[in-house]
Formats: sequence, C-alpha cells, structure tokens
Amino acid sequence: MNLFDHLSEYADSDYYPFHMPGHKRNSECGLPEGVYRYDITEIEGFDNLHSPETIIKDAEQRAAKLYDSEETYFLVNGSTAGILSAISAIAERIGKVAERSSNWKREDWHGNRRLIIARNCHKAVYHAAFLNHMDLYYVYPEIYEDFDVARAIKANDIESTIKKIISEEKVDAKMAGRLIAGVVITSPTYEGITSDVSGIAEMVHGYGIPLIVDQAHGAHFGIHPKFPENAVREKADLVIHSVHKTLPAPTQTALLHKNGILVDSESVRKYLRIYQSSSPSYILMAGIDRAVQVMEQEGYQRLDRIMDMRDAFLKRVENCQYIRICPFTEPGKLVISVKGSSMTGQMLHNLLLEKYHLQMEMAAGSYVIAILSMMDEEEGFNRLSTALLEIDREILRKHKEGKNKFETELEGFSGELEGVREEKLFSFFTIRPKVEIGIWEAYTSINREIELVDADGRIAADFINLYPPGIPLLVPGEAIDQQTITIVKHYLQNGYTVQGIRGNRIKVIRA
Amino acid sequence: MNLFDHLSEYADSDYYPFHMPGHKRNSECGLPEGVYRYDITEIEGFDNLHSPETIIKDAEQRAAKLYDSEETYFLVNGSTAGILSAISAIAERIGKVAERSSNWKREDWHGNRRLIIARNCHKAVYHAAFLNHMDLYYVYPEIYEDFDVARAIKANDIESTIKKIISEEKVDAKMAGRLIAGVVITSPTYEGITSDVSGIAEMVHGYGIPLIVDQAHGAHFGIHPKFPENAVREKADLVIHSVHKTLPAPTQTALLHKNGILVDSESVRKYLRIYQSSSPSYILMAGIDRAVQVMEQEGYQRLDRIMDMRDAFLKRVENCQYIRICPFTEPGKLVISVKGSSMTGQMLHNLLLEKYHLQMEMAAGSYVIAILSMMDEEEGFNRLSTALLEIDREILRKHKEGKNKFETELEGFSGELEGVREEKLFSFFTIRPKVEIGIWEAYTSINREIELVDADGRIAADFINLYPPGIPLLVPGEAIDQQTITIVKHYLQNGYTVQGIRGNRIKVIRA
Repeated sequence: MNLFDHLSEYADSDYYPFHMPGHKRNSECGLPEGVYRYDITEIEGFDNLHSPETIIKDAEQRAAKLYDSEETYFLVNGSTAGILSAISAIAERIGKVAERSSNWKREDWHGNRRLIIARNCHKAVYHAAFLNHMDLYYVYPEIYEDFDVARAIKANDIESTIKKIISEEKVDAKMAGRLIAGVVITSPTYEGITSDVSGIAEMVHGYGIPLIVDQAHGAHFGIHPKFPENAVREKADLVIHSVHKTLPAPTQTALLHKNGILVDSESVRKYLRIYQSSSPSYILMAGIDRAVQVMEQEGYQRLDRIMDMRDAFLKRVENCQYIRICPFTEPGKLVISVKGSSMTGQMLHNLLLEKYHLQMEMAAGSYVIAILSMMDEEEGFNRLSTALLEIDREILRKHKEGKNKFETELEGFSGELEGVREEKLFSFFTIRPKVEIGIWEAYTSINREIELVDADGRIAADFINLYPPGIPLLVPGEAIDQQTITIVKHYLQNGYTVQGIRGNRIKVIRA
Repeated sequence: MNLFDHLSEYADSDYYPFHMPGHKRNSECGLPEGVYRYDITEIEGFDNLHSPETIIKDAEQRAAKLYDSEETYFLVNGSTAGILSAISAIAERIGKVAERSSNWKREDWHGNRRLIIARNCHKAVYHAAFLNHMDLYYVYPEIYEDFDVARAIKANDIESTIKKIISEEKVDAKMAGRLIAGVVITSPTYEGITSDVSGIAEMVHGYGIPLIVDQAHGAHFGIHPKFPENAVREKADLVIHSVHKTLPAPTQTALLHKNGILVDSESVRKYLRIYQSSSPSYILMAGIDRAVQVMEQEGYQRLDRIMDMRDAFLKRVENCQYIRICPFTEPGKLVISVKGSSMTGQMLHNLLLEKYHLQMEMAAGSYVIAILSMMDEEEGFNRLSTALLEIDREILRKHKEGKNKFETELEGFSGELEGVREEKLFSFFTIRPKVEIGIWEAYTSINREIELVDADGRIAADFINLYPPGIPLLVPGEAIDQQTITIVKHYLQNGYTVQGIRGNRIKVIRA
C-alpha cells in the first residue's frame, strides 16, 4: 500500500475527526474534494514525517531503493528545505571537526566555515551559507557562447580553489577537510547542463570534503540509459531531487538523499525538523510516494516514449534557420535558442504563449526553456514544432524585408526588448566581484540605499539577481565596481528584471 | 476572483505546459484529479509568493483586512515558517540596534540577542532561537491543578524578567529595547488557554520591545463575541495564525501578520524567502485564500452554530461523575479530563478511537483534546457525548465493583498506563533548569550519549521533550540535576514518549 492508499482507506471510514485540519475532511470547503478528503494530521497509524517509523518510513525506503541511496528523506518544503538542511549539516560538521582539534577555541568557530560553491547555484545555497555564517568561495562556469548557456563545473576548477585555500592557510593537503565544510554544485542546471559528478566526488573525497549536488532538475535521472546517471550513484554525499520538477508530483515536493560517512545523519535529520513545518501535508507526502512509484514502475517506458517524441520533434525543427535547439542539455530540457536572429528569448516566450498557448518554463536573453517530463503528450511536441516552424519562417520573411526588428500581428512582445540582442549579454559570469565581508555580517548590517551610479567602491548589502536565471550578480558583502554598475545599468535599460534594485537605487553597507 | 478561481480558469484553458510541475496537470497521476489539475508554478499571470504584486498580493490583502492587520503573509511551510521568520527578524533588529550604539563592535553581536519566551512555546520558537544564536530567558506558566493544564502567561512575570535583565546589565529601563530582542508567547495554547495579549503588548511596548504571539491555534479568533479577540487587534507586533488548525484550510498552511514600527517589514520578507520553498504550492495558497473567504463570509454564522452545538454537548455531559470538560479554554477546544478517575488520558483516547471511532487531537496524562472548527457537524458532538456518557457510567460501575483499574472488553488501552495516575504528574513546569551554555553552542557542540542515571551535573546537548504536549523538559545547554533525572525516569517508566532519550541514554556536552 502506498501512502495514498492509507489515506484513501481512512477517508472511507466512519472515524470522526476531532483533530486538525479544520476543514474536517469536508469535501465542500471550496477547493476540489481531493484536497480536503485525504488531508489529515499525525493521527494514530499515520506515522510522523519528523520521526518516521511505519508508513512514512516505508515510503522513504521505497524512494531510497529507487535511487540506490542509503538514506532518503521526503521534503514538503521543496528542494529549498533539502539545501538548507544539507548545508547546515556540513557547517555543523566542520565546527565539530574544529572543536576536536587541540588548539580550538569556541569563539573561533567563525572563519572555519568555508564553502566552495558554483556561482550558478540556486539562491537557497546562498541563504544556507548566510544562516550558517559561512564564507563563500566561488567556482565559475564557462559559457557555451553559441547559446549563452553556462557550461559544466570542472573538477579542476574546484581543486584549484581547494589548493588556494590550503596554500593561504599554509596547511597540508590532508588538512583540507578541516578548513572546508563542503562543495556545492548544481547538476543539471536549470538549462539542463550536467557536470561530471563522479569525477568531482572522487576528487573532493580525496581531500576529505563532502560534496552536495543540487540535482533538483534531475529526479528523473538514472533509470533510462539516454538520460544521465543520478548523483547518488555518482557518489555525492548529499543529493537533492525536486520531484515536482520532472516527476509527476505536486509542487513543493522533493527528496534529500544522504550517503557515505562524511556527513552525520542525525545532524541532517535535526535540520530537516527545523526547516520544515511541524504539520507536514499528507497530500504532498502521498504525492511524493506516488511519483516515486510511477518512476519505478513506469519510468523506463515513459522516458523511452518521451525520447521518441523528442527525437521526432528535433527532426521536424532541424531545418530551422534561426531557431536552434541546444544540443548540450540532458534530454529532459529543450533550450530553444533565437540567438543571432532578430528575436529575443522574451519575445519568443510571449509569442509562444499568446499566439500558440504554449507555456514555457522561462525566458532568458536569447532562449526559452521547455521542461519535459514523463507525463508529456505528443500533442505538446506537435504544437511546439508547428509553432517554431512558423516563427522561424516569419523571422526569415522579416529579414528578407530588411527588418531587423521582429514584429507580428500580436501585441505585447515586440519592440521594447529590441536592444538586448547583443553578443555579450550573458556576460555576468565575467563579473567576479571581490568578497569584502562575510555574507552573514553583510546581510544583517545596517544598510542604506544609494543611487547605483554612486555605488562604485561600496559594499553590497543585498543580493542583486538577474531574473531569470536568478543567479546573483552581487552577493551581500561583495565589492561594487564600475564594471558591475555598467552591466547592471545595461540590464535595467534593456527591460530585464534585476532583483535587489529599486528605481536605480542599490543597498550598500553603511560606510 | 479568489486564487482558486484563477487556477480553475487556467485549468479549463488549452495552454500546454512546458513548465513545472512534472505531472503536467495530468489528472491520472494517481492522486485525486484536483491535486494535479490546479497545481501550477509561477507562470505568467500567477504572481509570485516571494514578491507578490497581483493575485497573491490581493489574496494577502484580503487576509490582512479580515484580521485588521497592516501586513499579512501567506505561509506554505506552516506556522513553523512564520515563527522562524518572525524571530529571525527581531534578532536582526537587535543586532542593528546594537550596531547603531556608539560602543558597538561587530564581534559582540552574540550576547545582545536575548529572547524572553514562555517555556510552553512550540519547538519552532526554540529552533529559531538556535538558528539566531539567541540567549533564552523563560517565563513559566502556573498550572490549573484540577486539570493539569498550563495557565495563561502573566504580564507581571514577563516584566519581572525584563527588570532582572536590566538590573543585571546595570542599565536604565529605557535601554531594555537594546538588550532584549523580543518576547514570545503562545496564546491560545494547545489546550486553548489564552493570555492577556493586550496587557502584555502594552507593557512590553513601554520598554520598546516587540511582542510575538504564536496564535497558531487561534485563526478563528476575532469574529464572534463568544471567542477571544485576535492578537493583531490586541496589538502584538507579529502574529502567527495556523489556518489549517481551526479554519477550513489544507494542512501546512498559515498566516504571518506584521504590525507597528518595532519590526522591519523588509527583514520579515527576507526571512520568509529564506525559510520557504522557492516553489510554493498554489493548491496550498488557494486553500489559504478560500479559508479566509469562508471565515470572512460565513465565519460568524458558522461559529454561532458551533457554539450552539457545543452548548448542547456540554449540557448533555454536565452530570458525568468522572469526566469533566475544562471550563477555562476558549470555545474552540474541548479538554476532556479524567483526572481523579481510574482512567488516564491515553486510555480515554484509545477507547474513543477504537470503540467509538472518534479521533481526538491528542492525549495527555489526564485528559484528551478535541479540536473544534467551523466545519464540525452535529453528528460528531452527538457521538462524542454519547460515548462520554457511556464511558463515565463504565468508570462508575468499575469503581462500585471496587476496581481501581479500568478495563473493558476492548484490548489495547488498559493496564499498562495504570501507574501514571498521580497528582503531581504534570509537574514538569516545576523543573526550572539552569541555563549553562547558549542554545546554539550547546546544540552544535560535540556530544556523547551517557546513561541517564549518570547525567547529574552534566549539560544537555539535545532537547528532552515530553510528548505530548511536546514542551521541553530540557533544552540544549541546560544543567541536568537529580530532580530532572528522577522526573524523566518517572515518565519513561510510565510509558510516556520522552523524545531525546534513547534506551535510557541521554546526550550531554562532552566534558
């Protein structure tokens, strides 16, 4: 019996609820029946997410088996909760490692909490570093210039950072595990680019450092040979899978896998109890369990079917002159590029949405992302290929008419984004701001808002993110220089959403 | 249009989802249709919980209006997220207050983060203090001895604690707001006991200190005169309402209200972004919005109806000889006491569950708690009164037969809990352990597990909770003495769940 079967059996019984939730399983509360009818709290027989012993434990073990993990935890507060808990656990570990060393003083805990992360990590990684007063060291990805998409993170670049820390601290390489709390990478990225997790894991483990892989976008990995292996089997210590992204699970659900001996399981469980609701939703938990079941029982066939549909789709659009599908992504993503054409990603997004009723996952400067899942239908691929072929012809026609500006009969997606079409737009990985102050200190200090143009030489007090993709241009504590100001102004002038800037004003640390 | 109307409209459209969630709104994913059909992500037109501007903002404003709050935030990670965010915001505030003072050094931030809390606060309050490296000062409730239920928290007791801190630090009373981050109380408690929030708010505001009220169990307050006023109108600065507890909303949903000038709104929003999933569930958000609508449009009538049913119920059971309904709770709770009879709370709970199929919210030593909500039905009250009358007669019959041990034809609830019937069981508020080390330091230090009997003189490294009610007997950093050991052993021997003890072993700080 899966979790939902248990809920279903209870819903059919004559037990009267003198307990939460307050809807009392009354199907007439306004949302669809199922939202209330199967929604209960930790009553007798229904176990407890925060200390599972029976039906939730069984469900977690089913998920662990699917991914070959030693331990797996259900997350009802999304991958966010998994990332916060994973990083908090390794921060606690490095503190204890320091405590064990002979010359440790409790007051020194700060300054021993180095975390190496890929700069294109999710904001939850930065938040976790903030909550744990960690010092961030960045590894920057290179770019596929033809697609403006960040490449994989290289083991070599991570190792250089480790060596740099070792050399600055003048310690032996085997002490690295006492100086560095861990390494965090995202694989696959939002765009579907995977890194060599096996190689990175082997390298960092050689230094006694744990590896966390944010595999939020790769819960479908490891079951079909045309898709990448999952990061658990590739020996990462902690892996986060968002089940709602690519598996058939409700939004806000995820899994955290823990393996090996570098991370303390009790510590992971402690932080999961802290960062997640003490009233977790049984609907969300049942949704995770069911998605795991679909993946296990039907995953191979369903992904096989999707690959066939994807291949047919690629064949249909392969002769497009302006629209290209990025070939470097894992098959679960379609990065549809209009780079080099008269169109922008945002324009393509709006055109697909308004004219064709095709809702993309997101639009970036020169591309849009479509997320595929094992529940996709042929209809979707057909509508998308038809639309792209039409749009490609339209771009060609406009070009022949000598128009550099893409216009159609539809309103709302032309014109204003015109100026963003340039080669170096996706240049923000070329800014590598200097860290002046730790993220916790900077993000809790008194700050003031000043004009962006006056910010040269100041220190950022808030995140400045280009959205999408949501990767920080500036992190609290980083130096603001003229180059950064120029790039931020450029994005603002071209209609991008730059989070953390309000009316050309930026928050800086009070001087 | 409420949030669900928007989701419903979208579900009926022909938009094809190349976005998350991976179930692609396919109704055949295994859980009821509604769980998938209306579940989307932050697509065009559906706003963003973490930066609301349109439909989610409107929904939050509807909730704010209902409770007369200046600002209200939807929570999809339960009241837990609200408590963590509220306390983190006031911790940040006290840090900035210190930073503004002339003789401040950044290294001194620790030690200025005092938090006064009622000892019977929810564990999330302790977790928030831990995450923010705060020092806890406790106010202990007295007990209704006839019911083993904790009484209200008194403004006087809080003020004594404030005065004690002022006097220890040798500062003027008007400096209290620079020394004390805030005060946190729970009102109503799990048992339904409310404190004088107005009086406490007025007093603490006189010192420039913010008040946080965990009103998770009181989202139904303030609309019907037979129920207490809500804590927002009673002038608390931050109030947390669990909408799933007493309103018709799905589990894991809540509201955070912010008022006045003592707390920075931006800081509150920052921590909500940190502690909550970046993929919040639209089903949960729509469920909150709908519950607010029910409360606003039908709340008075529905609560009126519940009061009538409750009154009729009380009349039916008023002549019970052994079973008593605690008269001190707000009307939304029934604390059903068997104190002084041959029965225990756990036995009553099991009997109601197994024989009568009445599922209580929880069982404590000498009582059970039933949660009422505006969705209750007459059938429930009738079945409960019938059951209680029968059980009361049964207790009487057994007593007449000279049996002190309560047995019936049913298995599983008699015998083993026999020994717990004693007057001083609910005595754990009489333990007032001494705080030796701050909660953050203690909860992240290297610890070891030792026999409970050997723990006298050691410092606790984990929470020891009696569950239910889940209130800590010991908090990490507190001294363990012989009295505490005796009480913990007593609970263990009598079959209680004591969280944090494994096989008579307890975690202590490494000496």
